[in-house]
Amino acid sequence: MGTKENGCAGSTQASTQVDKGVDFANYFCTYGYLYHQKEMLSDRVRMDAYFHAVSRNKHHFRGKAVLDVGTGSGILAIWCAQAGARKVYAVEATKMADHARDLARENGVEDIVEVIEGSVEDVTLPEKVDVIISEWMGYFLLRESMFDSVICARDRWLKPDGVMYPSHARMWLAPIRSGITDQKMEDLNCAMNDWHSFVDETEVHYGVNMSVLTKAYREEHEKYYLKTSLWCNLDPNQIIGTPALIKDIDCLQATVDEIRTITAQLMLPIHADRSRISAYAGWFDVQFKGCGQNPAKDEVELTTAPDADGGTHWGQQVFLVNPPIRVNEGDKVLVSFKMSRAKQYHRLMDIELISELELSSGKRLPPITTRVSIE
Amino acid sequence: MGTKENGCAGSTQASTQVDKGVDFANYFCTYGYLYHQKEMLSDRVRMDAYFHAVSRNKHHFRGKAVLDVGTGSGILAIWCAQAGARKVYAVEATKMADHARDLARENGVEDIVEVIEGSVEDVTLPEKVDVIISEWMGYFLLRESMFDSVICARDRWLKPDGVMYPSHARMWLAPIRSGITDQKMEDLNCAMNDWHSFVDETEVHYGVNMSVLTKAYREEHEKYYLKTSLWCNLDPNQIIGTPALIKDIDCLQATVDEIRTITAQLMLPIHADRSRISAYAGWFDVQFKGCGQNPAKDEVELTTAPDADGGTHWGQQVFLVNPPIRVNEGDKVLVSFKMSRAKQYHRLMDIELISELELSSGKRLPPITTRVSIE
Repeated sequence: MGTKENGCAGSTQASTQVDKGVDFANYFCTYGYLYHQKEMLSDRVRMDAYFHAVSRNKHHFRGKAVLDVGTGSGILAIWCAQAGARKVYAVEATKMADHARDLARENGVEDIVEVIEGSVEDVTLPEKVDVIISEWMGYFLLRESMFDSVICARDRWLKPDGVMYPSHARMWLAPIRSGITDQKMEDLNCAMNDWHSFVDETEVHYGVNMSVLTKAYREEHEKYYLKTSLWCNLDPNQIIGTPALIKDIDCLQATVDEIRTITAQLMLPIHADRSRISAYAGWFDVQFKGCGQNPAKDEVELTTAPDADGGTHWGQQVFLVNPPIRVNEGDKVLVSFKMSRAKQYHRLMDIELISELELSSGKRLPPITTRVSIE
Repeated sequence: MGTKENGCAGSTQASTQVDKGVDFANYFCTYGYLYHQKEMLSDRVRMDAYFHAVSRNKHHFRGKAVLDVGTGSGILAIWCAQAGARKVYAVEATKMADHARDLARENGVEDIVEVIEGSVEDVTLPEKVDVIISEWMGYFLLRESMFDSVICARDRWLKPDGVMYPSHARMWLAPIRSGITDQKMEDLNCAMNDWHSFVDETEVHYGVNMSVLTKAYREEHEKYYLKTSLWCNLDPNQIIGTPALIKDIDCLQATVDEIRTITAQLMLPIHADRSRISAYAGWFDVQFKGCGQNPAKDEVELTTAPDADGGTHWGQQVFLVNPPIRVNEGDKVLVSFKMSRAKQYHRLMDIELISELELSSGKRLPPITTRVSIE
């Protein structure tokens, strides 16, 4: 069903790699808007991390060839050029490539930055590169599955001793308290009450009994209110247990197979007393450490953990636990975590969390299964 | 570029009929949600019109064969069955067809209503029909271009003496007063001020000058704020001139060619003194009159004109006039109206209005061109 991209194995297993036109309509097209680019360019935490990673590690760039995967406005490519790169191939799938070209020219680096419009799976470069730089991270790291494209680019175009920017990525999970679960449950109740009135009125006024649709209507709204992850910028004091590391990725070694399905057995100690796990929060961080033979001189980290100063445009992803789980300090939650790509579309994710509460007494409560989708 | 549907001429002229997968991602998929169906089913003006049209004209249905194009939940099909139809073919492109089937069964009409999942362009019926019923109207009547599918169904499946429900449709335009144009101009100014600050900060903090993108950023935001039609439910007292009829459609005779581009020369007398045309409002109405040889006994009209009682889910479409045109009672606006399908996607519309104000003195002011898109 999907088109096999040039040079990369199609990832058509359990998840659908959709037709290119559909992929553009669903995904790529947003990136063609300056409004969207500006939103990312205005994220100071994001910008600082990449800017410092590059400008404080010029040894990785001076005289080198660089590939920027998904250059967008071209900002990373321009920074690489300003850091001394000999050549930067800046690949962009949308018409934003035209703007990237203008930006490179107006900033005096058009001899260094070559903007190529196309998918990185399809383009041909005149040489292999020393560095691949990309800002590929989606919500909770892997939403959008753009890392597949970076892996493909790496396998095709990175020299054996080349360096990835970022070099590493990690996914985290923590239990949180929040009023949002109660709120969404209330919203669902209101929606169902409204539905029942609608069913009554439709029968009275129009002689058609719609009650056979109640089950499907409820399922649709449960999915919407309770089983779709939420974007939030959480306050750190909402975290009621120690965050656990779900996955640690070495961007130089990772394969698409390894990230297609992410599983982890986690242990989250609770540190808030007489509280409730209303949800789990998921976030990520990335590091710019270079590689073993060619390390960074100044390591930089970009984190999207809850931050009192406001966070990033990624926020965190919040997975509601319905109903919330009562917990006390000293309890532990054992979480069996599994994230896989949505069957219908590989850029979206389905998550299953099985939570077993272990009280401080040692007693274990029956497991609770939570299924959510990252849409 | 588009796939030619079975039995109907492809409409690939100046506008793109997109690939079926893209069409589903962009358009059809919304109709697969009960939430969306309920929104339409809760529109009492819409429901009353169709319900009365059918139930007060049983002679059109008793013992007859009916085709419901785009049956959705199946409501129209069920009403036709309840009005005495012998057979109703209820065609639906999305999985909503499953729900329509359940609804027909639970309402005791499954022997009459046959739900067929598919595009009406592709399906094969065992017989021609006496009536084609469909709720195909989009914003400003033709957004979504679903009427193309109804025309196709008519040409393939309606008996020579058959009847269309609705039988006629009209598009209207009126000048309105509104604070919204000033508001959108202010929003645009704020967006540009914010952009300029962003450009300055990006140069200071990150050494990259983004000013070359200012023109494109402005164009993108002008399009968004000023050149995209707005959905509103207007108050009738916002109308400051006599509405003009843009187009009158006979659903039994209309061709796709005739509706591909709509042009009209309109004359709108102004009846408000010392006012401004801040925008034009567009809306539609449809009538259920039957046909010459087989008229309705009880004619019903469904109008989406501005209504103090709240209107319909269609609202009206509002086309901003920037800057607003000062007018006085007795003035006339001569409007050259043209609506065509968006190049990239046949279900969206591009509108051009050329307004010439003729003062009560007889003096004519230079023409003002307004271009908007219905997205």
